[in-house]
Amino acid sequence: MSTTNSIGIVRAQRAQFDTPLTFRSGAVLPRYELVYETYGKLNADKSNAILICHALSGHHHLAGHYADEPKNIGWWDNMVGPGKPIDTDKFFVIGLNNLGGCHGSTGPSSIAPETGKPYGASFPMITVEDWVESQARLADRLGVKQFAAVIGGSLGGMQALQWSLAYPERVRHVLAIASAPRLTAQNIAFNDVARNAILTDPDFHGGDFYQHNVVPTRGLRLARMLGHITYLSDDAMADKFGRELRTGQLNYGYDVEFQIESYLRYQGDKFAGMFDANTYLLMTKALDYFDPAHDFGGDMNKAFARSKSDYLVISFTTDWRFSPQRSREIVQTLLHNRRNVSYAEITSTHGHDSFLMEHPHYFDVMRAYLDNVASEVSR
Amino acid sequence: MSTTNSIGIVRAQRAQFDTPLTFRSGAVLPRYELVYETYGKLNADKSNAILICHALSGHHHLAGHYADEPKNIGWWDNMVGPGKPIDTDKFFVIGLNNLGGCHGSTGPSSIAPETGKPYGASFPMITVEDWVESQARLADRLGVKQFAAVIGGSLGGMQALQWSLAYPERVRHVLAIASAPRLTAQNIAFNDVARNAILTDPDFHGGDFYQHNVVPTRGLRLARMLGHITYLSDDAMADKFGRELRTGQLNYGYDVEFQIESYLRYQGDKFAGMFDANTYLLMTKALDYFDPAHDFGGDMNKAFARSKSDYLVISFTTDWRFSPQRSREIVQTLLHNRRNVSYAEITSTHGHDSFLMEHPHYFDVMRAYLDNVASEVSR
Repeated sequence: MSTTNSIGIVRAQRAQFDTPLTFRSGAVLPRYELVYETYGKLNADKSNAILICHALSGHHHLAGHYADEPKNIGWWDNMVGPGKPIDTDKFFVIGLNNLGGCHGSTGPSSIAPETGKPYGASFPMITVEDWVESQARLADRLGVKQFAAVIGGSLGGMQALQWSLAYPERVRHVLAIASAPRLTAQNIAFNDVARNAILTDPDFHGGDFYQHNVVPTRGLRLARMLGHITYLSDDAMADKFGRELRTGQLNYGYDVEFQIESYLRYQGDKFAGMFDANTYLLMTKALDYFDPAHDFGGDMNKAFARSKSDYLVISFTTDWRFSPQRSREIVQTLLHNRRNVSYAEITSTHGHDSFLMEHPHYFDVMRAYLDNVASEVSR
Repeated sequence: MSTTNSIGIVRAQRAQFDTPLTFRSGAVLPRYELVYETYGKLNADKSNAILICHALSGHHHLAGHYADEPKNIGWWDNMVGPGKPIDTDKFFVIGLNNLGGCHGSTGPSSIAPETGKPYGASFPMITVEDWVESQARLADRLGVKQFAAVIGGSLGGMQALQWSLAYPERVRHVLAIASAPRLTAQNIAFNDVARNAILTDPDFHGGDFYQHNVVPTRGLRLARMLGHITYLSDDAMADKFGRELRTGQLNYGYDVEFQIESYLRYQGDKFAGMFDANTYLLMTKALDYFDPAHDFGGDMNKAFARSKSDYLVISFTTDWRFSPQRSREIVQTLLHNRRNVSYAEITSTHGHDSFLMEHPHYFDVMRAYLDNVASEVSR
């Protein structure tokens, strides 16, 4: 069973990069660190490496647990491990925390060596393209010239797509799950409301809240509450919560009345207590900015003309944040460019969150595709 | 043409009620005022009255303009007027500002006679049922024993439905447009995020911000921005804004980049400058609370067993806040109870906002139905 064989004890590693990184915005980061984890063994010809790119609130800790934190299980432990769809007996799997993140890689809450203070508002606006550059340097460091696959869900899927555009020779397979070629106006709108919740929180202090010893908890909490609505389907919410009352009766006040309110507020509070507000802002902007067609007059087909990878695209029927229609747009663009592309539209009630959940059909598709990828690499 | 014949100059009227009103919550309001407007003439046997119930941000000013404010056109001027679908040559049409509102009827921003201060947090939590009670008293005052029709869109549609449950003998026709029998968990979730934006705004002061000479602008702005996303369809947003940039280029900052952000922020700012935060909270709670089946063990069919009205139910294909599925639930419940019900599902790209827009098919349906209603009343 894919749930049982956890990879066990893992540990995070760090890589320091001292060559300046120029961002798409023009900003330059003189040096930075990335925190990452690896699972499985790189084979002799270094052909079995898989990179996993994370979504908005993800990080490097994909699978297993730390020796001193047995309950801190990786966020994709159901997918990554020995005998699991992303099989660490066959692949050398890399997870990293993206630049700008708040789980150990250099980000807005890191101390800037130039000033001795947190970067805060001075951390550059980052794009999916910039992330792929920073990831390519990590691949160089690990000796990986070409990935067997780059895999990601949601914002992670955008990074996987971008890998095949920026480095067509360095990625044999792209797995883009619950993703989109670029955001719609509605997507951007949701992100902008979330951002405005943070930006207008009096405790945000223009992004330099660290020095004030406060955290824009209110804004971050609202952003996460809103996010959660869009990650779940209407039906899933109805099934899970319906109109169930927390105390079994109406209390006619602004405290929690319905269980759905309790759930949302709990999720918001939990997130606001551990996530960095500036990282949240950066991640949502990276989502907004990603548009491979932007430099090609809006023509997505032209943008993907340079791609050489094979692709697996997966969507979920009730995902309305990154709907199947958006995945089909990716597929159409790839077919137009005569790429090998497999597409699976998984029937699931769990909305956008489906990509994180263990679903037999979804996992079977992943396993079957990656078994083929594994057959191409030497052991 | 329905757009050309505005009813012209109108004026608002006030009605004072000195009999205490007991709310569903148990709270009692000793006295209150309602502001309302009427259009057309009540016929001799008082059989041609139509009540229009407003939605979240609506009010009493349906049609025409004020003598000293020629640009202040009523919010449903395209629908209500001489020769229009709700024809003021045939009907005596009443619009009111709901109790708890902020357009002239007694609400949280009104001065409480007992204290000489605004009600603020002390204003009772109000329900759709309470509104119908207050509206029934207004009908009594105007000498209307039975309405030819009660009409409303969205939250207004819930009031129209409730009229036929609370006073089956007093309403011959109910027109429920873009409405729902009760909110889903997702609906409640969106409302709770909007409310939390207001409740956690430091300028809210627990609802008593009036005494502090501040307004919880940040919270109200976020609430409205979020609301606007849900009033529009994904497609309508894509058509209107797409990924268009305000300055034609990316600026890599948190100011407006995309036109959709500009639109949303403008709408948020405008609304925050004129709407009362406590009224917004009350309106969203009234939406959440409405559930005719609540007192019938969750059985909507039983709840509607006492209804005697005829019904017209209208939905719009791209409305995802109050989807056609929710209107069909109303229809099914009415058919179960052998009511006369007409149902129209209008193909429209404009989402929930469609009910406010002039759409030929929608207007034709309204006109045809109300022409039949008019044929039942004497001139």
